[in-house]
Amino acid sequence: MKTQTKNLPHVVIVGAGFGGLRAARALRKAAVRVTLIDRNNYHLFQPLLYQVATAGLSVDEIAYPLRGILRGQRNLEFQLAEVQKVDMENQIIRTDLGEMSYDALILAVGSETNFFGNVSLAKNSFGLKGIEEAEAIRNHILHQFELASQTEDHAFRQALLTFVVAGGGPSGVEMAGAISELIRLVLRKDFPRLDFSEVRVLLLEAGDRLLTHLDASLSQAALTALAKKGVEVRFGQQVQAFDGRTLQCTGQEDLPAHTLIWTAGVRAAELVDGLDMQQATQKRVQVLPSLQIPGHANVFLIGDAAYLEGKDGKPLPMVAQVAMQQADTAVQNLLRWLRTEAVQPFVYRDLGTMATIGRNQAVAELFGLRFRGWIAWLIWLFVHLMQLVGFRNRLVVLINWAWEYLLYERAVRLIAHSTVREESWSAHKL
Amino acid sequence: MKTQTKNLPHVVIVGAGFGGLRAARALRKAAVRVTLIDRNNYHLFQPLLYQVATAGLSVDEIAYPLRGILRGQRNLEFQLAEVQKVDMENQIIRTDLGEMSYDALILAVGSETNFFGNVSLAKNSFGLKGIEEAEAIRNHILHQFELASQTEDHAFRQALLTFVVAGGGPSGVEMAGAISELIRLVLRKDFPRLDFSEVRVLLLEAGDRLLTHLDASLSQAALTALAKKGVEVRFGQQVQAFDGRTLQCTGQEDLPAHTLIWTAGVRAAELVDGLDMQQATQKRVQVLPSLQIPGHANVFLIGDAAYLEGKDGKPLPMVAQVAMQQADTAVQNLLRWLRTEAVQPFVYRDLGTMATIGRNQAVAELFGLRFRGWIAWLIWLFVHLMQLVGFRNRLVVLINWAWEYLLYERAVRLIAHSTVREESWSAHKL
Repeated sequence: MKTQTKNLPHVVIVGAGFGGLRAARALRKAAVRVTLIDRNNYHLFQPLLYQVATAGLSVDEIAYPLRGILRGQRNLEFQLAEVQKVDMENQIIRTDLGEMSYDALILAVGSETNFFGNVSLAKNSFGLKGIEEAEAIRNHILHQFELASQTEDHAFRQALLTFVVAGGGPSGVEMAGAISELIRLVLRKDFPRLDFSEVRVLLLEAGDRLLTHLDASLSQAALTALAKKGVEVRFGQQVQAFDGRTLQCTGQEDLPAHTLIWTAGVRAAELVDGLDMQQATQKRVQVLPSLQIPGHANVFLIGDAAYLEGKDGKPLPMVAQVAMQQADTAVQNLLRWLRTEAVQPFVYRDLGTMATIGRNQAVAELFGLRFRGWIAWLIWLFVHLMQLVGFRNRLVVLINWAWEYLLYERAVRLIAHSTVREESWSAHKL
Repeated sequence: MKTQTKNLPHVVIVGAGFGGLRAARALRKAAVRVTLIDRNNYHLFQPLLYQVATAGLSVDEIAYPLRGILRGQRNLEFQLAEVQKVDMENQIIRTDLGEMSYDALILAVGSETNFFGNVSLAKNSFGLKGIEEAEAIRNHILHQFELASQTEDHAFRQALLTFVVAGGGPSGVEMAGAISELIRLVLRKDFPRLDFSEVRVLLLEAGDRLLTHLDASLSQAALTALAKKGVEVRFGQQVQAFDGRTLQCTGQEDLPAHTLIWTAGVRAAELVDGLDMQQATQKRVQVLPSLQIPGHANVFLIGDAAYLEGKDGKPLPMVAQVAMQQADTAVQNLLRWLRTEAVQPFVYRDLGTMATIGRNQAVAELFGLRFRGWIAWLIWLFVHLMQLVGFRNRLVVLINWAWEYLLYERAVRLIAHSTVREESWSAHKL
């Protein structure tokens, strides 16, 4: 079938997130055979995942079929598989479907939620990394309100209506803001007989400010915006345990709550532990400035799972921008390596960073300028809309956002997947 | 809270499908307290479920949150619960959350897939009644193609690519047509290296024609349209067993296939078995012409679960139209009964019926006129679009349809819910 390309070097890319997908496309005109492997058949626009979790968007609006994106690329094959092991000595990767050899490898495996070995957290709290988790959060939040509407037990109801988000980074800030808006703007209309003064949304941060990657003035702006939206922000709070009913924080009274969303920890995808390389903070693997893995010139590691320091001596952040820029450098270096030319070091150009705190509120640092409030929110909307894959997705997301904005609505208030619910029902038997 | 309404008669409606929702709305100005119970928090537009199963629409486009629909209705409370038992003697219903008494009851519990006690079918084939099933079908079909693209075993690949739909009614015809189009128009582009002459879509019907509720000329038109779309229609075929790998039909050779979608049987929801009333064909409960249950003047049964004959002596069909018209009659009779007036018999006005067979093809009988081909398809589009709840849903569905039509695309080609997939992965280990 692929006779004419059989003798070309085989480049395998593991992971079709921002980094892996960008690398795949950057190779489209190269004289190589590319295999892109992912355990999902879609590319996920993770920055909007919290909107799926809060009933604003549906999954298909932020997930796009990879075969659709890559249709035109003749030198590429996609494989739906889970990579289990990378054997750099023998240049082989092992997946749940078998083995595959490579000439060069780009690992873009991303990151996963880090519960720091805390079993109670891993079992009872929600992470926010994939579409299943986002839908589970949506189902769960809506279900708490259904249960609350049917009980006369005040303490029980109070616990059902206490929503805790752990972690004051962008994910935690956006999530807490979105939950509070879902509740106060939308669910309030759905549950007219509930007393909404019983609802609490808490954001717990271990340190002493939010969004530490931004200027302190923007952290303060975010805090003010969250407070206005009814989110209680608590600093210096370390979560110790959560059994699904009660939250324990160091030096605090127990807090009855049925919902904990955990955004306070992230680590390189577990697959990299098996590489047996030096791992820095968050289990990220130390790579060479060229993004090669030390001792393995044909293996490139990019994105969240790679550890590299910026000019300021700080580790590069785990964000899409870094992954995408690294994809470009990795591909160039890979092609240089194939031509036996010298590889070049990666240089990060920080285009800025932003976080939204719901309706009309965001903070952003772009090209060295700081924005907040309405203007930052508009910038955020525009940037995110333009980054979505596909015209249909942009149009449908825009319609949903306009509809939400004008009517104070959330379209996707569905409790789907009855298995999740039934489990939770029986646990809650009134 | 609801002091002023406490003394009003309490009407409980079980089920928020076409009948139950219509009844709830018809009671909005009545001097009664209404409780609407459903096990889901959404109303599902079932006629388009097959488009979710074939990656054309996402769930939120055909499911609408009940609390959103019923927000303005002050005399109504919604309860998310599963009804387990109706005790007509004591005027109590039992749910998974407790008991509730009623003064009058409207049962609109609908129907469910009937596997006629065949365990292998129930376990290994897909029904098409809820959103979970529709998403499972979508995940499964797309996954078969991913697996087929990764195997060199011809017989295995052939079995993966054989899709069987059982039942030649509207659901089966629409499903078979939509699967064939998904494959031949869309997936063909996603899997350029697969040999699509290996793909088979079969529609099995036990009788000797499709769409028996329509005129024979339209049955023939549907058959021709399906054949043109590459669907193999086989008559006189009774499925005996399906183990997930091989399909057995009476008097036929075994057919290796990994997919069976079962639309060949439907029965009244199991809840009605517990009423201990006379049940007719498809376990439907014989009701009085007034839609009351014999001996229980305060209990009305409407929709798919009710058995009543039309003027032609045939049972009324299990369709939305019947349920909605019965809802109106049941509500009127319920109010008459509260006023101790005489109840009136239900009279069905058949507005027509239609089925679509994919792109540009449909058959319809409306107001005694017969339509087929493009014009029937346009009528079908218009009627279904207008029946969707909510402006946003109509707009987004219209965009999806236009996009599909113009670009030969299906937006929702996502294999979601990895649990489903992983199970299937391990079973398929190559």
